Amino acid sequence: MRILVLHGPNLNLLGRREPGVYGVVPLPEINQLLTQEAACLGEDSDGQPVVLDCRQSNHEGVLVDWIQEAWGQFEGLLINPGAYTHTSVALRDAIAGVALPTVEVHLSNIHRREEFRHHSYIAPVAIGQISGFGADSYLLGLRALVSHLRNGAVKN
Amino acid sequence: MRILVLHGPNLNLLGRREPGVYGVVPLPEINQLLTQEAACLGEDSDGQPVVLDCRQSNHEGVLVDWIQEAWGQFEGLLINPGAYTHTSVALRDAIAGVALPTVEVHLSNIHRREEFRHHSYIAPVAIGQISGFGADSYLLGLRALVSHLRNGAVKN
Amino acid sequence: MRILVLHGPNLNLLGRREPGVYGVVPLPEINQLLTQEAACLGEDSDGQPVVLDCRQSNHEGVLVDWIQEAWGQFEGLLINPGAYTHTSVALRDAIAGVALPTVEVHLSNIHRREEFRHHSYIAPVAIGQISGFGADSYLLGLRALVSHLRNGAVKN
Amino acid sequence: MRILVLHGPNLNLLGRREPGVYGVVPLPEINQLLTQEAACLGEDSDGQPVVLDCRQSNHEGVLVDWIQEAWGQFEGLLINPGAYTHTSVALRDAIAGVALPTVEVHLSNIHRREEFRHHSYIAPVAIGQISGFGADSYLLGLRALVSHLRNGAVKN
Amino acid sequence: MRILVLHGPNLNLLGRREPGVYGVVPLPEINQLLTQEAACLGEDSDGQPVVLDCRQSNHEGVLVDWIQEAWGQFEGLLINPGAYTHTSVALRDAIAGVALPTVEVHLSNIHRREEFRHHSYIAPVAIGQISGFGADSYLLGLRALVSHLRNGAVKN
Amino acid sequence: MRILVLHGPNLNLLGRREPGVYGVVPLPEINQLLTQEAACLGEDSDGQPVVLDCRQSNHEGVLVDWIQEAWGQFEGLLINPGAYTHTSVALRDAIAGVALPTVEVHLSNIHRREEFRHHSYIAPVAIGQISGFGADSYLLGLRALVSHLRNGAVKN
Amino acid sequence: MRILVLHGPNLNLLGRREPGVYGVVPLPEINQLLTQEAACLGEDSDGQPVVLDCRQSNHEGVLVDWIQEAWGQFEGLLINPGAYTHTSVALRDAIAGVALPTVEVHLSNIHRREEFRHHSYIAPVAIGQISGFGADSYLLGLRALVSHLRNGAVKN
Amino acid sequence: MRILVLHGPNLNLLGRREPGVYGVVPLPEINQLLTQEAACLGEDSDGQPVVLDCRQSNHEGVLVDWIQEAWGQFEGLLINPGAYTHTSVALRDAIAGVALPTVEVHLSNIHRREEFRHHSYIAPVAIGQISGFGADSYLLGLRALVSHLRNGAVKN
Amino acid sequence: MRILVLHGPNLNLLGRREPGVYGVVPLPEINQLLTQEAACLGEDSDGQPVVLDCRQSNHEGVLVDWIQEAWGQFEGLLINPGAYTHTSVALRDAIAGVALPTVEVHLSNIHRREEFRHHSYIAPVAIGQISGFGADSYLLGLRALVSHLRNGAVKN
Amino acid sequence: MRILVLHGPNLNLLGRREPGVYGVVPLPEINQLLTQEAACLGEDSDGQPVVLDCRQSNHEGVLVDWIQEAWGQFEGLLINPGAYTHTSVALRDAIAGVALPTVEVHLSNIHRREEFRHHSYIAPVAIGQISGFGADSYLLGLRALVSHLRNGAVKN
Amino acid sequence: MRILVLHGPNLNLLGRREPGVYGVVPLPEINQLLTQEAACLGEDSDGQPVVLDCRQSNHEGVLVDWIQEAWGQFEGLLINPGAYTHTSVALRDAIAGVALPTVEVHLSNIHRREEFRHHSYIAPVAIGQISGFGADSYLLGLRALVSHLRNGAVKN
Amino acid sequence: MRILVLHGPNLNLLGRREPGVYGVVPLPEINQLLTQEAACLGEDSDGQPVVLDCRQSNHEGVLVDWIQEAWGQFEGLLINPGAYTHTSVALRDAIAGVALPTVEVHLSNIHRREEFRHHSYIAPVAIGQISGFGADSYLLGLRALVSHLRNGAVKN
Repeated sequence: MRILVLHGPNLNLLGRREPGVYGVVPLPEINQLLTQEAACLGEDSDGQPVVLDCRQSNHEGVLVDWIQEAWGQFEGLLINPGAYTHTSVALRDAIAGVALPTVEVHLSNIHRREEFRHHSYIAPVAIGQISGFGADSYLLGLRALVSHLRNGAVKN
Repeated sequence: MRILVLHGPNLNLLGRREPGVYGVVPLPEINQLLTQEAACLGEDSDGQPVVLDCRQSNHEGVLVDWIQEAWGQFEGLLINPGAYTHTSVALRDAIAGVALPTVEVHLSNIHRREEFRHHSYIAPVAIGQISGFGADSYLLGLRALVSHLRNGAVKN
Repeated sequence: MRILVLHGPNLNLLGRREPGVYGVVPLPEINQLLTQEAACLGEDSDGQPVVLDCRQSNHEGVLVDWIQEAWGQFEGLLINPGAYTHTSVALRDAIAGVALPTVEVHLSNIHRREEFRHHSYIAPVAIGQISGFGADSYLLGLRALVSHLRNGAVKN
Repeated sequence: MRILVLHGPNLNLLGRREPGVYGVVPLPEINQLLTQEAACLGEDSDGQPVVLDCRQSNHEGVLVDWIQEAWGQFEGLLINPGAYTHTSVALRDAIAGVALPTVEVHLSNIHRREEFRHHSYIAPVAIGQISGFGADSYLLGLRALVSHLRNGAVKN
Repeated sequence: MRILVLHGPNLNLLGRREPGVYGVVPLPEINQLLTQEAACLGEDSDGQPVVLDCRQSNHEGVLVDWIQEAWGQFEGLLINPGAYTHTSVALRDAIAGVALPTVEVHLSNIHRREEFRHHSYIAPVAIGQISGFGADSYLLGLRALVSHLRNGAVKN
Repeated sequence: MRILVLHGPNLNLLGRREPGVYGVVPLPEINQLLTQEAACLGEDSDGQPVVLDCRQSNHEGVLVDWIQEAWGQFEGLLINPGAYTHTSVALRDAIAGVALPTVEVHLSNIHRREEFRHHSYIAPVAIGQISGFGADSYLLGLRALVSHLRNGAVKN
Repeated sequence: MRILVLHGPNLNLLGRREPGVYGVVPLPEINQLLTQEAACLGEDSDGQPVVLDCRQSNHEGVLVDWIQEAWGQFEGLLINPGAYTHTSVALRDAIAGVALPTVEVHLSNIHRREEFRHHSYIAPVAIGQISGFGADSYLLGLRALVSHLRNGAVKN
Repeated sequence: MRILVLHGPNLNLLGRREPGVYGVVPLPEINQLLTQEAACLGEDSDGQPVVLDCRQSNHEGVLVDWIQEAWGQFEGLLINPGAYTHTSVALRDAIAGVALPTVEVHLSNIHRREEFRHHSYIAPVAIGQISGFGADSYLLGLRALVSHLRNGAVKN
Repeated sequence: MRILVLHGPNLNLLGRREPGVYGVVPLPEINQLLTQEAACLGEDSDGQPVVLDCRQSNHEGVLVDWIQEAWGQFEGLLINPGAYTHTSVALRDAIAGVALPTVEVHLSNIHRREEFRHHSYIAPVAIGQISGFGADSYLLGLRALVSHLRNGAVKN
Repeated sequence: MRILVLHGPNLNLLGRREPGVYGVVPLPEINQLLTQEAACLGEDSDGQPVVLDCRQSNHEGVLVDWIQEAWGQFEGLLINPGAYTHTSVALRDAIAGVALPTVEVHLSNIHRREEFRHHSYIAPVAIGQISGFGADSYLLGLRALVSHLRNGAVKN
Repeated sequence: MRILVLHGPNLNLLGRREPGVYGVVPLPEINQLLTQEAACLGEDSDGQPVVLDCRQSNHEGVLVDWIQEAWGQFEGLLINPGAYTHTSVALRDAIAGVALPTVEVHLSNIHRREEFRHHSYIAPVAIGQISGFGADSYLLGLRALVSHLRNGAVKN
Repeated sequence: MRILVLHGPNLNLLGRREPGVYGVVPLPEINQLLTQEAACLGEDSDGQPVVLDCRQSNHEGVLVDWIQEAWGQFEGLLINPGAYTHTSVALRDAIAGVALPTVEVHLSNIHRREEFRHHSYIAPVAIGQISGFGADSYLLGLRALVSHLRNGAVKN
C-alpha cells in the first residue's frame, strides 16, 4: 500500500515559522513520525506494509504534477495543501481528475483563523478533513486514509 | 483520564437514517468501538486508563447542561454536535465557559454538503475538527483528544 | 392511516397571541377541526380511517424526539414548525432521517412577514408547503398529505 | 361566485415537460379536475355555485391584461405564475392594483429547487401560497380561495 | 417637435389602483394635462409646436416595439416604465439602441418604497429621472425633455 | 408589581466562566442584588412593592414555557437571553405573543464582540436593550422596567 | 410663500468643477434663475408671491442648523444635498424632524454614476427626487415644490 | 435537419444600434450568412441538408411560444436571447421543457460588459455558450449545433 | 467627578420632532433631570459630588472638538450621538483617542428602527449601550457611568 | 499566421479524467484535430497557412512565461485556461500585457457547473469565450480566432 | 511650489492618542519634519523652493473649504484624511472639483485594521496612497508629490 | 544592510505593457534607479551601505522560494507582488513565516482600478503599502524600508 504525502507551500518552514500558530516540530521530524506510524499501521491486522513517499513544494504546478503522476503509483494521498487550500482550483481538479482517495490535513485549526481560511477548495473532493492537532493531524490523517483504503470507503 | 462523549441530535438514528450519508454503524456500536479504543489508548505508554461516558440527546439544553456538569468531572470532551454545529451559540458558550479541551467530530464530510453545513459555531472553541470518516471520525477524535491531554496542547 | 400532527413553539398561544397575525382560533379548536376533517377524509373513496395524534411543544428537542418516535408508528407528518421553521437544522435532519412523508403548514403567510421568516429549513425535506390561510392551512395540509399517501407521491 | 384561474408560462407543456419535476397530468386535465372540485364546493353549505374561467398564457403582458379585466368580473384569482413568480413585478402590481383576493399555487416545491426559485414577487400580495403537491396544489388552492371568500379573510 | 409618451404596465389602472400610492388622477386625464402642457410649451419662446403621442401597454415587448418605431418619428421619449423599471433590460437596450433622448418619470417616490423598487434599469440610459410628484411628475418630465431638446443636452 | 427575571443559557456559570468577559459576580449574587434593588424601588414614590421571581435555564423551550406562563402572573419581564439572543426566533415570538413589557440586558457589550453577537432577535420586541455594564446591566434594566411600568410606556 | 433653497458641499464650485459632470452654470446664476422662476410662479393663478432664500454650505452641521431654523420661517425646502445625499443621516433626521415639505434635486443623473451615489438617505423623507437635468433640475424642483404646497400633497 | 434560429429583443436594430457594441452587420445579412453556412454544412460528410427558420421578436412570450411550437418541428435551437438572457426564467423553462438541443450565442462579449450581463439564465439549459465574435458567433454556434446533432451530445 | 454630557445632531428638536419616535420631553428638561439625578448620585455612599456639563451640537467636528477638550477636564462621557452613531468614524476615533470612559445612550430603541440604525460605530469604543427608554436612557446611562467610575471598570 | 495554443492545468488528463465532465478525447488527439482544422483554414480564401504551436502546463508561471514569449512570435492565442480561469489574475495581466488577440475556450459548459466556475478572469481581456462543446470548443475557437485575425476585430 | 498639507480629524491628538496605533510623534513635530524635508527637496535639482502650509481640522466642512480655497493658491495637496477617509464623499468631491494633484497618506497601515478602514473614498481621486510608515508616511508622501509635480504625472 | 527586491508576474513587461497603466520605464531601468537610491541612502547618516538584490518571476512558487531563502540573508524585503497581491495566500504566509520586514509597492494606484485589485493579501503582513507613483513607488518604498530598519519599527 503506497501513499503519497504532500506538503504544500511554506510547510518546509515548520518549526521556524510562527511557532505560536504551527507548533515547533520541523517538517523532517513530521515525515519521520509519519514513517513510524506507517510502520505500525503496516503491522496491524494483515501485515501489508504501508509505504510513504513524502514531498514538499511551494509550487502549485509541481503539486499538481505530482498528484497526476501518482495515478497508478499510489493508492492514496495525504495532503496538507497549506495556503493553496483556499486558492487553488487546479489542485482540486487534479485530485478529482486522478480520483485518488485523499485525506486533507491542517496543523492549525483553520476554522478559528482568518475568515478566508475557513473555506477549502480541496475538502469537497477529499474523503475528509482533519485540522487543528499540530503534527498529530498528519498521523490521524494517515490512520484515516489507511483505514479507508483497507475497509472500503465510508459512505459520504 | 475521564472523557465525556456527546452525540447531538438525531445521532441515535444512526444506522437507520440516510445510510448513504451517515453510514450503517448504529450508535451503540460506535460507543462500543470508542470504549475499545479507549482501552487500547489506556494501555499505551503509561497505563493510565481512559474512561468514557457516552451520552446522546436531541435537546440543545440537555447538551449544555451536560457540558456544564462535566466541569471538574471530566478532563476532555469529544462531541459530534450534529445539527447544532450550525445553529447553537449556546453550545459554543458552554464549551468556552467550562474551558474543557474539546474535539469536534462529524461522520460525514460537512464541507461537501449543503452550504449551511460548512459553518461551525463549535470549531472556534475546539482544539480541532475531524469530519468525513464515518465511525472512524470518532476513533480519530478520541485519539487526538487523549494525545492532546497527555502531551499538553498543541499551539493553535 | 395514522398521522402525527405537530405544533411548534408558541402555537399553544393561538387565539390569544397577536390575533392580527395568527387569527382567533385557539389550538384545541384547530385540533378538533382537524379531527373532523380526518373523519371526512376517512369516509372518502375507500373508508380507510384517518387517525390523528396532535401534540404541541415549545422544545426543539421534544419535537425531534416525537418525529423519531413516529417512525413505524405513523405514516405521515403534518407539521407547523413555528419559529423553528427558520432556525432548526435538527428538525430538518429528524424529518429527513425518518423519511416520513411531511407537509409543512403555516397560519400566516410567512412570505409577507419579516425577511428572516421567508426561509424554511423544513421545506426542502417536505412534500410541500402551505402558508397563509389561518386554520385552513392545517385542513388543506391534512388533505394534501392524505392524498399524497393514498395516491403515491407526486413527482417533485 | 366567479373565479379566474390563470396558468403562467410553459404550463401548457404540462404532462410533457420534465415530468420528473412537474408530474404527468396535462393542463386540460387539471382544468377538468378544477371544474369538478368547483362543482363539489358549490354544493357545499349554501349551494352558491362556483364558476371557473381557466386560461393560460406565456405572455406576461397578457396575464396582466387578464388580471386587470378580472376586476368586477371575478371575485377571486387562483394563479400559478410559473416562471413569472420570480421575475415579474408587473404581475404583482396588477394583483395589488385590482385588489382581487389571490391564491398562489405551484406544482413543484419551489423551496427545494434552484435558489432563484425560492423568492416570489407574488406571495406578498397573495392571501397565501401552496407549493409542491402537483395537480393537488390547484385543488387545494381553489378550496382555500373559496373558503376565504365565503368566510371573510383570515387575518394575516 | 414630436414626443412619444409611454405608460408602462398597470398605469391604465390609475385613479382606481391603490390611490394611497398612485393618486386619484386617471390616465386619460394625465394625457390631457400633458397635451395642455405641450401646448403651453409650444407657445414659449419660438412657437415651435410640441406634439405628443400617448400610449400605454402592459406588454414589455409592445413597449420595446414602440420605442424602436419611434426612431426617426419622434425627437424625444417621456416614459413611466412602471414595474418594468426594475426588471427590463430589454427596455433599456431599446432606449440605448435608438438613442432617443429619454426622461424617466414615476408617480410615486420609488426611493421610499420596497427595496427592489430603488433600482432602475432605465435611469442609466435616460437624461434624468423624476419621481414622487404624482401627475406633476409627467408635466415636469415633459418640461425637462422639451428644455433638453431645445437647449441641447445638459452635460451629464 | 411582579416581575419575572430570566437568565438564559450558561449564565449559571457566571463568576466561573470567562471572567474576562462576564465579570466575577456569580448568578445568585446578581439575583440578590436585584432583590435589594427591587426593595429600594418598591419604597420609592408610592410604596407599591416590586417582587421578583428569578430563574435560569439552558433550555430554549423552558424559557419559552416560562414566558408563556408569565402571562397574567407578571407585569414585566427582565431577560438576559444569553446565546439565544442571536439564534432564537421562538423566544422572540413568545415575548411578542404574551405582549409582556420586556427589557433585554447583557453583561458584556455585545456590540464589541464577534459579529454574530451584534444582532438580537429579541431587541425588536423589547422596550429597550442595555448591554456592557456587568451586573449593573441587570440593575439598570430593572430600574428601566419599573419606571416603564409606573409611568406608562415611553413612546418608541 | 417662503422657500428655503439649500446647496450642499462643493456646489459653490459649480461652473468650475468637472464641467463634464456638473455643467457650466455657476451657482449665483442658478440662484438668479431660481429667483426668476419664483417670480413667474408667483404670478401664476393667484398672485401669491414665492420668495426664496438661497444658501450654500460645505458643512453638514450648518445645513442641519439651517433646516432646523427653517421651521416656522419657511413653508418648503428645495435641497441639493450634494455629497451628503449619500452619507448624512443627520440631514435626513433634520428634515424629518422639522417635517418641512422637501424636494431633492441633483444636477447630474446620480443613477448613472458610481454605485455609491445611487443611494440617497434624503429621498425617503422627501416628496420626490429630480436628477440629471443640470440647472433645470432646480427649476423643475421649485415648480414641483410650489405645486405641492398649493395643491396639497400628492399621495405618496 | 431543421434548426430554429431565434433572435431576441432589439436584435432587429442590428447595424443601426450602438455599432461600437454590436457591429455593423444588419440582421437580414446575418440570416443570409447563416443560410449560406447551413448550405455548406449540409454538403459536408453526408449531404443531409440543414434547413433554417430565422425569426426575431421583442416579446418574451412570443419567443416562448415559438420554442414550444418547435417541439417536433425542429431538431435544434440556435438562440441569441439578447436582453432576456439576463432576466427571463420563462425562456429557460421553455427550453428545458421542450428539451431541444440549444446553443446560446451573443454578438458582444457579455463577460466584459455591465455586471448584470455576466449572468445567463439560459446557459445552464444550453449545450454551450459562444459570445464576443459578432456575426461570427452565430456561424460558430450553428456549426457547434449541427456537429452536436450529428455526433451525439458531447458529455457535459 | 465631572462628566461631559453630549447630545448629537437634532436632539435640540426634542419634544418637537417626531414625538411618536422620540417622546415629548424637550432637551432642557432632560438636562434638568440629569442634573437632579447627578445630585442624587452625588449624595450616595460617599458624598463626592457629580457635576455635569451638558452640550448639544449638530456639527460632527464640534462634537469631536469637545471630546478632545474633555481630556483632563472630565472623568467620563455620556453621549447620545444621534445620527452620527451610524456614520461617524471621527467621533469613534475621538473617544478612543482620549480614552475617556464613555456610555452611549439612545432615546428610541435603535434595534427596531431602519436597518441602517442597527449599527453603531460608537459602541465598540464605549463601556456599554442603553437604548429605547426615552429620557430614562439618559438617567440610566448616567447611573451606569458613575457606577463604572466609582467601582472600576466592569471587565468587558 | 502563427497561433499559440495553450492548455491549462490538468488538461493533460483529458480522456482519463472525469469523462462524464470532460469527454473522452485525449489531449494529443485534440491537438491533432486542431492541426487538421488549421490546415483546412489555411486553404480557405487566400492560402495563407495557419501554423499552430500547442503546449500544456500545470504551472501558472509557465503559462505566463509562454504568453509573454509569444509576443512578436505569434499573431493570436487560443487558450483553455482550465482551473486558472477562475483564480489567475496573473494570466489575465499577461494577456492584457502582450495585447495578443485571444480566444478563451472550455470543454465543459462552465456556466452550469459549480458557482465558482461561472466567473472568468480571462474573459474580459479576450475577444470572446466558447464553452460547452467538448473538443469542438477548440475547433470553433480556432476558427473564430483566424476569422478575427483575417477580417480585423469585430467591434466589442 | 506651494503645497497644502491637511491633517484630518483627531490627528491633533497625535503622540497622545493610542500610541500603539499612531506612534509617539506629536503633530507639530510632524509639521516640522515636513518643513525640513520641503527645504531639502527645494534644494534638489533646480533650487525651486517648496513651501508648505500645514493645517488640521476635525471639521469635514472646514477641510472642504480649505481644499476649495487651495485652488490657484497651491500646486499640490498632501492629505491625511483620518477618519474621513472612510466616510466623506464631500472631501472626495472637493478634491476632484479643484483637480489639485493629491497624495493620500496614513500613519497606520489601514489595510490591517478594521474592515471598514480598508476602503478609501479619497484614493480614487488621488495620485496614490501611502500607508503604514508612521511619520515617514508624510515625508514619503511629500517627496512623491513634489516628484509628481516636477516630472509631470505618472500615467495611472 | 542587504535588501531583497522582488518583482512579481508580468513586471518584466514594464515599459512595453499597457503604458497607459504602468508607465514607460522598463524593469532594468527601475532596478538601476533603485540601486542609485540605495547608494544615496547608504551615504546618509552612518555610511552603512545598502545592498540590493533585484529579481523578477512570473511563478508564485519561485517567489515563495526566494522569500524563504531570504531568511538570514537579507534584512528587508521590497516587493511588488503584481497580480499575486490579490490571489496569493502562499506569498502572504511566506512573508509572515520568515518575518522579514516588508514593504509592498505598486506602480499603479490599485485603489482606482477594478474592484478585485482593491484587496491585498500582502498588506496585512507588510509594514505598509505604497501605490500609484509609478517607478517612484519603488524608490519611496526602499526609502521607507531603510528608514524602518534603521529606526526600528514604527508602531502599527
